[in-house]
Amino acid sequence: MKETAYYNGKTARLARLRVPATDRAFYFGDGVYDAAYGRNGRIHALDEHIDRFFGSAEAVGITVPESKAGIKEIITRLAVRSPLKDQFVYFQVSRGSGIREHSYPDGVKGNLFVMVKEGKIRNVNLPVKLITVKDTRFLHCNVKSLNLLPSVMAAKAAEREGCDEAVFVRDGAVTECSHSNIFVLKEGRLITAPADNRILAGVCRAHLLRLCEKEGIPAEEREYSEAELYEADEILLTSAGSFCLRASELNKKPVGMKDENLARFLQQALVAEFEEAVNPQQSKV
Amino acid sequence: MKETAYYNGKTARLARLRVPATDRAFYFGDGVYDAAYGRNGRIHALDEHIDRFFGSAEAVGITVPESKAGIKEIITRLAVRSPLKDQFVYFQVSRGSGIREHSYPDGVKGNLFVMVKEGKIRNVNLPVKLITVKDTRFLHCNVKSLNLLPSVMAAKAAEREGCDEAVFVRDGAVTECSHSNIFVLKEGRLITAPADNRILAGVCRAHLLRLCEKEGIPAEEREYSEAELYEADEILLTSAGSFCLRASELNKKPVGMKDENLARFLQQALVAEFEEAVNPQQSKV
Repeated sequence: MKETAYYNGKTARLARLRVPATDRAFYFGDGVYDAAYGRNGRIHALDEHIDRFFGSAEAVGITVPESKAGIKEIITRLAVRSPLKDQFVYFQVSRGSGIREHSYPDGVKGNLFVMVKEGKIRNVNLPVKLITVKDTRFLHCNVKSLNLLPSVMAAKAAEREGCDEAVFVRDGAVTECSHSNIFVLKEGRLITAPADNRILAGVCRAHLLRLCEKEGIPAEEREYSEAELYEADEILLTSAGSFCLRASELNKKPVGMKDENLARFLQQALVAEFEEAVNPQQSKV
Repeated sequence: MKETAYYNGKTARLARLRVPATDRAFYFGDGVYDAAYGRNGRIHALDEHIDRFFGSAEAVGITVPESKAGIKEIITRLAVRSPLKDQFVYFQVSRGSGIREHSYPDGVKGNLFVMVKEGKIRNVNLPVKLITVKDTRFLHCNVKSLNLLPSVMAAKAAEREGCDEAVFVRDGAVTECSHSNIFVLKEGRLITAPADNRILAGVCRAHLLRLCEKEGIPAEEREYSEAELYEADEILLTSAGSFCLRASELNKKPVGMKDENLARFLQQALVAEFEEAVNPQQSKV
């Protein structure tokens, strides 16, 4: 139990941390979060994750009780002091505490919770197996909120089928996975769903699109169908904790794995970017 | 601060109760709840609320750590010992505690939380003002879950407009409100949205439909449009804490209030049913 946590100024072992039952996260999932990976207190793309965190909070009218610099300091301090080497840092802000009422007072101060747990990066050489599930989620998926019950159920459904991730399909269109973004490669082009209210635009997704632009790999953000998954040369999943994974199976059928060179090139570029960020020996001067 | 609470066997003042940060309600809104009103420890329709609670839990695969009789005993004990006269009893079960992962171990035991707060019944003689909002919620509204962010935001939007409730409209169809069901009366007929995955079928909604059946008042559960709200003789809202309220205004326009006799008859029947349940003098022998 080496997880450590922070709540409104107090630091404790996660297993010992108690929070008020009146925190609105507890009644309503009335909060937003973000998360990033690091090593020994050096966290990859933390500023981008903090920017997105503030964006999520603003979208639902939650007041973060610290500045961006303040949050960064709290997270970094917890990560630096953590006994864990490979780190998953998680931070959430809820819409304060109060006796349970749906509505809330204006200007209520948010509750800030941060934790550091072990965050081993997944081996990108192991392809993943997927199932599809109906996307029954709300239309605020662009907000990284604590309303995650459908994602919890989708992740469990994948696990039950011996799979790694569940792909949400809404009205025939592939949106994203329970905790990853999803892409197809077809004839050298990268395709992914547009960043609207049906997906959470991942930081790693943005990095992959930026990489494609830099490398002259054509990339499209457009609606695409479940059929295009089956026809893809490669299906790729991105998330902060896995960078870029190749899928080899969808609903028990073989898929992708037909453009190894391009897939491996993208994987390695994203892994290298992470290593550069977290490894002091490889850092830029 | 007379609110009292219970969590996994421990009882405390609500304001002092602390829960583990690892309760999955806190990370994911991964839980379900129910709530009822009572007076001096006598709770109206508690068995129906407990039945629905178990139904919600089952729908999302959460294990309630007590039997129905056990939950009833815990709630009743807390309510009987409460110093409050008019009581709102709230009970929630989350999918246990654990280090944050979307998926969860099979057979994980739920965390049970119960609280009693003041629950003054709203005066049914005061009509309410409504706004409409787009129904962007997930398609599991039949589950009384802790994923309530859109309802929180809708309730706040109504408050900002000086209104009492927000009416959700999905693809032109009226579904329900942020924490009530909604009906129209038109030429002596009661109409309400069907009990599918777009609404939470309230206990009071069921009582109103049962009352109509008993009294020979025609009632339909069918999809109906926002236009039908404006054309209604009466718009009625039901919930456990307000029985049946008449709406006089929708989006700043006057509505309803044209079938006072029928509206008042329904209101009074529902109030009488509550009074009979909570008032020992009026109880059936």
